[in-house]
Amino acid sequence: MSSPLLATLIESLRCLPGVGGKSAQRMAFHLLERDRERGLRLADALREAMEKIGQCSRCRDFSESALCTICADGTRDAHLLCVVESPIDLVAIEQATGYRGRYFVLHGRLSPLDGLGPDELGLPLLAQRLGEGEIEEVIIATNPTVEGEATAHYLAQLARAGGIKPTRLAHGVPLGGELEFVDRGTLAHAFGGRQLLD
Amino acid sequence: MSSPLLATLIESLRCLPGVGGKSAQRMAFHLLERDRERGLRLADALREAMEKIGQCSRCRDFSESALCTICADGTRDAHLLCVVESPIDLVAIEQATGYRGRYFVLHGRLSPLDGLGPDELGLPLLAQRLGEGEIEEVIIATNPTVEGEATAHYLAQLARAGGIKPTRLAHGVPLGGELEFVDRGTLAHAFGGRQLLD
Repeated sequence: MSSPLLATLIESLRCLPGVGGKSAQRMAFHLLERDRERGLRLADALREAMEKIGQCSRCRDFSESALCTICADGTRDAHLLCVVESPIDLVAIEQATGYRGRYFVLHGRLSPLDGLGPDELGLPLLAQRLGEGEIEEVIIATNPTVEGEATAHYLAQLARAGGIKPTRLAHGVPLGGELEFVDRGTLAHAFGGRQLLD
Repeated sequence: MSSPLLATLIESLRCLPGVGGKSAQRMAFHLLERDRERGLRLADALREAMEKIGQCSRCRDFSESALCTICADGTRDAHLLCVVESPIDLVAIEQATGYRGRYFVLHGRLSPLDGLGPDELGLPLLAQRLGEGEIEEVIIATNPTVEGEATAHYLAQLARAGGIKPTRLAHGVPLGGELEFVDRGTLAHAFGGRQLLD
């Protein structure tokens, strides 16, 4: 590369997930040739976000203020709490469902080998919230992986200990999917959990 | 999105070519959750590159100094000049071939409808270089598109007017390609331009 700054930019762009050497090169040249203005805006947005975005003190979602907009929103149902592994799961639920309750973000799942225990997932903070007496149902939306299920089991116990009803997202055949292509575990689960039509 | 800074970051990431809403979201969350340090480094690299990278005064390649490293390199063959449409083509030639001559970057191709004429492509600067008497061969490496070919034609005339030999990259069947899948134009060209084996 004839320009050291350009080489640094291309190397730095590779920190983005899904971006390899070739795409990084294309991105760098595109910005330099056509879009320096937006490149500078991206630099500012990155710096600001990396420096200022912290966690909401109540739900641990990403937020630049002490209380995120969802926790600060008085119209949200305070009786429902949905627990997710990561902020991106929260976004997915917000976009797909009409859920109007509150959230709690674990930023991971129980995984002792990776050093992720109850403290790292903020479970003391969660227990404290459950103890406030307002919450009636904890919707456990951890991923349906082995570690996600273990975490869900732990969270359910925590909820029951506080006299709160734990619920879990339903497993089954995805909408629009064809049975032929559904994996065995899911199909067995959907079959066993069949529901009466009325 | 619960954080305005995060929303801005996701929107800004979409200026990168090939990055849509979903990937931008994934990138933003990845940096925030796992790699803030590298996110900050990327912000710095972007700002520096956008602000400081200009054009080499001799070959118009991207460079943060008045003379790029290739033009400043005394071991390069001053008799050969390769003309390319964009800096990324230069990188491709540097990486693939053992070419040791110099370059000239057009930053586009002749395209009157887009307002790209000889002046926008720096052709007066190129004519001046050709007039210096050092260059013996101009390798025209514009893209094999309609506009690229028109540009090549123009450049060849410019070279001939200065008594310099113009050459063009060879067209033909790509290495490792199967004839069955080569487009008709290329196949016809390769057939017509068949070469004697010795």
